[in-house]
Amino acid sequence: MLKEIRVFAPASVSNIACGFDAMGFAIDNPGDEVVLRFTDNVGLTIKTITGDNNQLSYNISENTAGAPVAALMKDFNIQQGVEIEIHKKMALGSGLGSSAASAVAAAYAANILFELNLSLLELLPYAIKGEEIASGAVHADNVAPCLFGGFILIRSYSPIDIVELPVPDNLYCTIIHPNIIINTKESRKLLPVDVPLRSAITHWGNTAGLVAGLYKNDISLIGRSIEDVIVEPVRGMLIPGYYDIKDAAYEAGAAGCNISGSGPSIFALSNSLMVANNVGARMKDAANRAGLSSNIYVSTINKVGPKVLYKL
Amino acid sequence: MLKEIRVFAPASVSNIACGFDAMGFAIDNPGDEVVLRFTDNVGLTIKTITGDNNQLSYNISENTAGAPVAALMKDFNIQQGVEIEIHKKMALGSGLGSSAASAVAAAYAANILFELNLSLLELLPYAIKGEEIASGAVHADNVAPCLFGGFILIRSYSPIDIVELPVPDNLYCTIIHPNIIINTKESRKLLPVDVPLRSAITHWGNTAGLVAGLYKNDISLIGRSIEDVIVEPVRGMLIPGYYDIKDAAYEAGAAGCNISGSGPSIFALSNSLMVANNVGARMKDAANRAGLSSNIYVSTINKVGPKVLYKL
Repeated sequence: MLKEIRVFAPASVSNIACGFDAMGFAIDNPGDEVVLRFTDNVGLTIKTITGDNNQLSYNISENTAGAPVAALMKDFNIQQGVEIEIHKKMALGSGLGSSAASAVAAAYAANILFELNLSLLELLPYAIKGEEIASGAVHADNVAPCLFGGFILIRSYSPIDIVELPVPDNLYCTIIHPNIIINTKESRKLLPVDVPLRSAITHWGNTAGLVAGLYKNDISLIGRSIEDVIVEPVRGMLIPGYYDIKDAAYEAGAAGCNISGSGPSIFALSNSLMVANNVGARMKDAANRAGLSSNIYVSTINKVGPKVLYKL
Repeated sequence: MLKEIRVFAPASVSNIACGFDAMGFAIDNPGDEVVLRFTDNVGLTIKTITGDNNQLSYNISENTAGAPVAALMKDFNIQQGVEIEIHKKMALGSGLGSSAASAVAAAYAANILFELNLSLLELLPYAIKGEEIASGAVHADNVAPCLFGGFILIRSYSPIDIVELPVPDNLYCTIIHPNIIINTKESRKLLPVDVPLRSAITHWGNTAGLVAGLYKNDISLIGRSIEDVIVEPVRGMLIPGYYDIKDAAYEAGAAGCNISGSGPSIFALSNSLMVANNVGARMKDAANRAGLSSNIYVSTINKVGPKVLYKL
C-alpha cells in the first residue's frame, strides 16, 4: 500500500482571448507540486505550504488543495490520517491558474493514494471545488486543461461537457508574469453583465476559428482567432504597459498574444522555440519600459496534465 | 466561346443555432437555378423569373441575381449584351438562403460565361452584393456555404476570413418549410442589441463544440452544440407551433434541431437517412397540428457548392 505521493500539475492559460470561461490550455512550465501522505494522526491537515508568501490558509475548507482532498475523503469514507504539503511554483493571482494547479495536483494525488480509480472526468468536480474557493465562481477553464492536459473546451457547465482538442505540432507558449497582483474575484466584478451582440458574434467566430485552427494545425488561423473585444478592454487597463507588451510580442513574431486568465500574466503563441524565446525577451523589455519587473516562461503545450513525481 | 450556361446553387442553413451570422452549411436539395446567356442586345437584362410568385424585381440593381452579374460586368468591362433567367426552386423568405442561392448561381455562372477565372474567394464579394439586396445587411453565412459547399465558418467579416470545415459522414438534414412568410429585414430588427455575457459564453462554447464535432465526426456532440439561447427565443415565437415541431424532431431521433436562418424553415440533423425521413414525417405532423401546411426536404450535406447544369 502507498504511503506518500508527490504530484506536479501544470499552469494553464484560460480564456485564450476569445473563449472566456469556455477554453484553456495547459503548459509544461511552471506548475505546482503537492505531496499527500498517510499519517498516524486523525483527519486531514495541511503540514507545509511553500512559495505562497504566507498568503494561503492552513484551514482545509479555505485551501484550494485541501478542499478537494477533504471532499474525496468524505465521499469515499477514508478514515486514515492524511497530511498535505503544497509547494507553489508560481505566484498567486498570476493569471496562470495557480489555484487550479494546486487543486488538481491534490485531487490527482488523492485519487492514487486512496486507490479510488476515479476517471479524470470523475475527479473534475473535486478539483473544481478547490478552484471555487479561490475565484468565488464555478469555472473550469483552468482546472479542466490542468487535469486533462492540452487544449480543452468546456462546451457546457450544466451538465458539464468537456471536449479535448488537438495540440498542434510546433506550438510554443511564452508567458510574461509582471510582478503585480490582480485579485481574480475583484477582476471578475469588472466584467460587463451584458455585451453587444456584435461583439459576441466576433467571439463565437473566433472560438470556432481557434478550434478549427487546432485541428488544421494552422497556427496563423489560431493566431487570427486570438482576439478579445469583450474582456481585454476591461482587464487590459489593469496591467500597466499591457498594449506595449502585446505589440512587442507581435513585432517579435508571435502568432497571437493576449491576457492569460484574469491577468496580469500575458501569453503569446509562436510557431517555433526560437520565436517564442525572442517574444519573451521583447515582452520583458516592454514590461521594463513600463516600470514592471517580470518573470518569463517559455514552454511547450502540456499534453498530459498532472504527473506523479514519486510514490512511496 | 460559350454562349449560355445554366447553374444550380444549393439552399443553405445559416446560423446553425449557435453560430448566428458566423456559420452555415449547404444542402443538396432544394436549390435555385440561373441561366446566363449572351445576346445581341446591349447591357444586362433579366428575361425571365419563375417560381417567385411575381415577387422579385426585374430591375438589375434590385435583384439578387442581377446585382452580382452587373458588378462583374462593370469590374471586368464586359461589353456584350447578357440576359438572365432566374428559376426559384424554393420559396422566398423561407430561411433557406434563397436569395443567396440565386446570387451565387448568377455570380458562378458569370465567372464561367465571361471566362474570368476568379477563385471562389474572389467571387464571394460579388455574391454577397446580391445577398445584401435581399437582407439589408452584409452577412455571408448563407452565401459562403452556398458558394463553397459544406460547413463554413465566417471567422471575421473585416477582413473576410472564411474557414472550410469538414462534413461528417452519415449526416443528413431534414428541413421543414412551413408555408408562412417571415421577412428577413423585419426579423433582424427584433434581435437584441445587447445580450447577457452568460448567454454569449453559452454560444461560443457551442460554436467551438460544433466545430470540434464536425472534425471528430461526432454527431452527438454536433447535436448537443445546436443550441441557441439568444436568437431562438425571439424568432421561435414568430413560427406557430415551433417548439412542438422541434420536440417532434427530437422525439423522432434528430441529433439537433433549430431555426434555419431567420426562419420560418426549421432544420434537423440526423445520423441516418431513415431517421432523417422519420424526423420529416413527425415534423410535418406537428406543423399540421399547428394548422400549418408545409414542405419537407430531406437531403445530404452539399459538399461542392454550385453545379453547372449545362453549357452551350
